[in-house]
Amino acid sequence: MNKVHAYAAKAPNSPLEPFEFTLPDLGPEQIDIRVEYCGICHSDLSMLHNDWGMTTYPIVPGHEVVGRVEAVGSSVRRVKPGDRVGLGWFSGSCMSCPQCVGGDHNFCPTGEGTIVGRHGGFADRVRSHWVWATPIPESIPAASAGPLFCGGITVFNPILQFGVRPTDRVGVIGIGGLGHLAVQFLSKWGCEVTAFSSNPSKAAEIRGLGAHRIIDSRDPSAMQAEAGRFDFILSTVNVTLDWASFIAALAPRGRLHHVGAVLEPFQIGAFPLIMGQRSVSGSPLGSPANTARMLDFCARHQIAPIVEEFPLSEANAALEHLEKGSPRYRIVLKA
Amino acid sequence: MNKVHAYAAKAPNSPLEPFEFTLPDLGPEQIDIRVEYCGICHSDLSMLHNDWGMTTYPIVPGHEVVGRVEAVGSSVRRVKPGDRVGLGWFSGSCMSCPQCVGGDHNFCPTGEGTIVGRHGGFADRVRSHWVWATPIPESIPAASAGPLFCGGITVFNPILQFGVRPTDRVGVIGIGGLGHLAVQFLSKWGCEVTAFSSNPSKAAEIRGLGAHRIIDSRDPSAMQAEAGRFDFILSTVNVTLDWASFIAALAPRGRLHHVGAVLEPFQIGAFPLIMGQRSVSGSPLGSPANTARMLDFCARHQIAPIVEEFPLSEANAALEHLEKGSPRYRIVLKA
Repeated sequence: MNKVHAYAAKAPNSPLEPFEFTLPDLGPEQIDIRVEYCGICHSDLSMLHNDWGMTTYPIVPGHEVVGRVEAVGSSVRRVKPGDRVGLGWFSGSCMSCPQCVGGDHNFCPTGEGTIVGRHGGFADRVRSHWVWATPIPESIPAASAGPLFCGGITVFNPILQFGVRPTDRVGVIGIGGLGHLAVQFLSKWGCEVTAFSSNPSKAAEIRGLGAHRIIDSRDPSAMQAEAGRFDFILSTVNVTLDWASFIAALAPRGRLHHVGAVLEPFQIGAFPLIMGQRSVSGSPLGSPANTARMLDFCARHQIAPIVEEFPLSEANAALEHLEKGSPRYRIVLKA
Repeated sequence: MNKVHAYAAKAPNSPLEPFEFTLPDLGPEQIDIRVEYCGICHSDLSMLHNDWGMTTYPIVPGHEVVGRVEAVGSSVRRVKPGDRVGLGWFSGSCMSCPQCVGGDHNFCPTGEGTIVGRHGGFADRVRSHWVWATPIPESIPAASAGPLFCGGITVFNPILQFGVRPTDRVGVIGIGGLGHLAVQFLSKWGCEVTAFSSNPSKAAEIRGLGAHRIIDSRDPSAMQAEAGRFDFILSTVNVTLDWASFIAALAPRGRLHHVGAVLEPFQIGAFPLIMGQRSVSGSPLGSPANTARMLDFCARHQIAPIVEEFPLSEANAALEHLEKGSPRYRIVLKA
């Protein structure tokens, strides 16, 4: 009854293999989700490789889950069996700390990661606290919704958190899995959207996503021409770029915001920050309430991830495709 | 009639000497101020030494001026002869760029610095655009008001700009000329105020200014105990500290804000920014409108700089006292 059929890696750099495990009894605030689709995120690769030193093996990856509620604990609210929900990086939080009580469950210091010390969505079933399972509006296609629950909310959240306005000039650095969603969000938000991309073969697609302008950030003269333009630049990349040139591209009160886990520290001069009252910042995933706001916005504006679909049984091939960096723009596994 | 009696340095590292010059005819939007007092700021030293490569000699320093309006051009608004006004870092701006029209005159790309390419307040008279001469409420003592117009607005402005709230836990790094004003502002703003100071001899004074707590930021274990505490930390120092320990001390959504012109770039890790949605930022002087708001706040709460007074004729001794770093907390010259 509680047996889960999944795919797991038993060690770093091992391929995924079929893996069965038994879930304990359902807690009163927990639900089980019958997985329909599960997106693949770069952080699945980081966890599979134990890049962050917090992986426990065997690991069942997958934290961009779409599925139907199958079972609910005795105290579950908001969702009932049969409802379609999405689950992202977090599968639980304490519900009692100031952050959880304040609606900022994503800052809970004891938040439970869907694939951290427990098993994720490369499986037929996955468990979560009901708060972290967000109902998906009927008009959002299930087959492509998965990436919204990690990649999507990661770039939607800062737009909300920092009060980006429809009159703002904004930029998006890196038009991949996260960036292609950020361009769509910001375009429908009403902003003037500039994509920073060094891949000219993507230009037509990027304009199709809603970008008004495309700048090659590796061209110093092109970057100089942007000086003082942007109210908000969202970086989705996890490599070091010439950050000073992006800070110079900020208007007074502008913000360079990072959601990419760049390992090398940023080198930031005091004068460019001071003279233009500029900010540099970062943010993690969003809260459950803001995930629901994102879905509502997606439904109203027909925003969806562009995905390549693989069957779950070909998860190893899908991971290899992601590792080579070639998906356009996000991969989803069909359970 | 237009002759000004001032003190000027003729070269880097030269002492100030009596210096006379003649002002051109008053422009229609300009005023002349009869100087009563002029504060001394670290940036006077930087300009005297040509540290920023933009000094023209002879230089008459002084950009924390308090005095009475003596003459007004034909189109001057708001002030009339005899009014007491203050003048800070800026003495003019274009009045027609988006920043000036938007009330952000402090971001004007062609803003005129009071001591940049023209002569400042170590003089019997100084000239400015009327917008940059802010009327001083009667209840504010003229003898100590000068430092509000550079040091004061520099630390008051970010409190306004970033929406610091009375419920916030805030910190001030460096309790000198700027910091002793920041502590007063934030205390009267209603915040819980922590002073970061490595000088135990100042503790009683710092509490007297309104600080609730004092932390020695050079004590690693004391800093560790502050992890996650602060919504806003304002750094007034211009030396490199262990910035990572201050970022770790920020609560979720917290901001480490710099007004000190630190020459060495900040090294900022991506993960601490991302995990806590933290920001690092800087800001320059405030706008004329916000300078007036500051003065109103000072008048209501009896906030004033603590100053040591020297006669203008002893400006060299006063500069030496500042250079040694020993004033408590700001120096004012009496004209």
